[in-house]
Amino acid sequence: MRLGTVRRNGSTQAFRQDDAGTTYLPVRDIGELLARGDWRTLAGEPGPEPSPEELATPVLRPGKILCAGLNYYAHAEEVGQDVPKYPTIFTKFHNSLVGPADDVMMPQASSKIDWEAELVIVIGREVRKADEEGAKAAIAGYTVMNDVSVRDWQGRTSEWFQGKNWDRMTPVGPVVVTADELDPEKGLAVECELDGVQKQSGSTADLIFSCAKLVSYISEFMTLEPGDIIATGTPAGVGLARKPREWIPAGAELVTRIEGIGELRNRCVLED
Amino acid sequence: MRLGTVRRNGSTQAFRQDDAGTTYLPVRDIGELLARGDWRTLAGEPGPEPSPEELATPVLRPGKILCAGLNYYAHAEEVGQDVPKYPTIFTKFHNSLVGPADDVMMPQASSKIDWEAELVIVIGREVRKADEEGAKAAIAGYTVMNDVSVRDWQGRTSEWFQGKNWDRMTPVGPVVVTADELDPEKGLAVECELDGVQKQSGSTADLIFSCAKLVSYISEFMTLEPGDIIATGTPAGVGLARKPREWIPAGAELVTRIEGIGELRNRCVLED
Repeated sequence: MRLGTVRRNGSTQAFRQDDAGTTYLPVRDIGELLARGDWRTLAGEPGPEPSPEELATPVLRPGKILCAGLNYYAHAEEVGQDVPKYPTIFTKFHNSLVGPADDVMMPQASSKIDWEAELVIVIGREVRKADEEGAKAAIAGYTVMNDVSVRDWQGRTSEWFQGKNWDRMTPVGPVVVTADELDPEKGLAVECELDGVQKQSGSTADLIFSCAKLVSYISEFMTLEPGDIIATGTPAGVGLARKPREWIPAGAELVTRIEGIGELRNRCVLED
Repeated sequence: MRLGTVRRNGSTQAFRQDDAGTTYLPVRDIGELLARGDWRTLAGEPGPEPSPEELATPVLRPGKILCAGLNYYAHAEEVGQDVPKYPTIFTKFHNSLVGPADDVMMPQASSKIDWEAELVIVIGREVRKADEEGAKAAIAGYTVMNDVSVRDWQGRTSEWFQGKNWDRMTPVGPVVVTADELDPEKGLAVECELDGVQKQSGSTADLIFSCAKLVSYISEFMTLEPGDIIATGTPAGVGLARKPREWIPAGAELVTRIEGIGELRNRCVLED
């Protein structure tokens, strides 16, 4: 089952895709949908498959956007870090999000802008102090993020936040694929291309902390709620770790793809 | 003018206090109030002054909870850091918040729980790329936080997030005092007491980055919105920096006070 959000007539609407085709649902986005108990069966109206350009980010205003850092062995190595004992968690807020075909806004204030293709967990039910089995049961599905990062601002202080939260810089989508149809532990290809050149090619089988482990760990200290999202970290191949370093040029097309989910295809546009 | 939120009849309601006394307003909290253009004049019903126990945290679900670290000279020194060139920003989410007289929940998973009395900025209007004057105009008022911190979890990774986001651990309140009545740059006393013993005694005149500077800096990269809150950092005297180190014992009463705003008075209770 695939869940998404379209923009239509100045508003937004959630849809579900399964063997019955595309069903448009009487809620504004996947956040509102997941907050209902009946999100798998909620009735709606059949309609045509949306085009990529119609898609908004699936959860418009997640209650929480959490991100794991240093969560692939090869990426931890390329940035000179030991294999971590605990997940590194940082955050984003909704102002950073754009849809799967939207422009990514590149600030004038930095030229050190980097890509990070990531698998994203979407929470489907409230969960606190869960073991891995309970954590798995709380995962509604998965989507794709490019955690586009302003590296010089990220490195200004110990906390990465200010490099990760520029307005309209983080594409998420195109849809949420439900957890019954996708198992990241079996290995999903995670890819990033810049202007048609492959920059990242990893597998979710190489995650240091699995999706269930991340949810279980976070739930030790905080309640996760339906519509919360958790980016799981990026594989090797980021621009920061290349020799020489590489950054996203203004005007570039950034493609972020995860096997079994789909792709983000975003033009990176210098803001006025 | 003072703005607050009370719990009543299983719901919540915002109130305003000025020369006319206490006026109960037809909105659920100060976040909803500030999202209106007419928050200074919105009509309501007169009523009695609320008791401390009735008060909820003023903004129940801030869109963003941002926190500055290392923002007092004496605190940066006590934790062994140079005076920073840029503000350090980390975040919290709404699940961490409790009201000004609520119990603070102490986890079983750590005994290294520390106090951090802080002045909090409450944003009153949308702001992006503001200079200091524009930033000042976007500040609706100020309130008080104790950024109670789980130090061992905070230090597990480079990102402090997981020490700062335990459920129901961060008291904020008691009310928001509007910016026309309070000038932190002139120096407001910031105090923290544990079981009647003073642990912190600072002044907002010693902030490294002023409130207007913080808002201006953050607005360089992200849009701030009405109801967003920004904790401005803690003065010297935290338990981590004491010799020997000190932590909050279960059962302790934590009092956090800022001149001209009021106090938080919270019992720290070990969770089941």
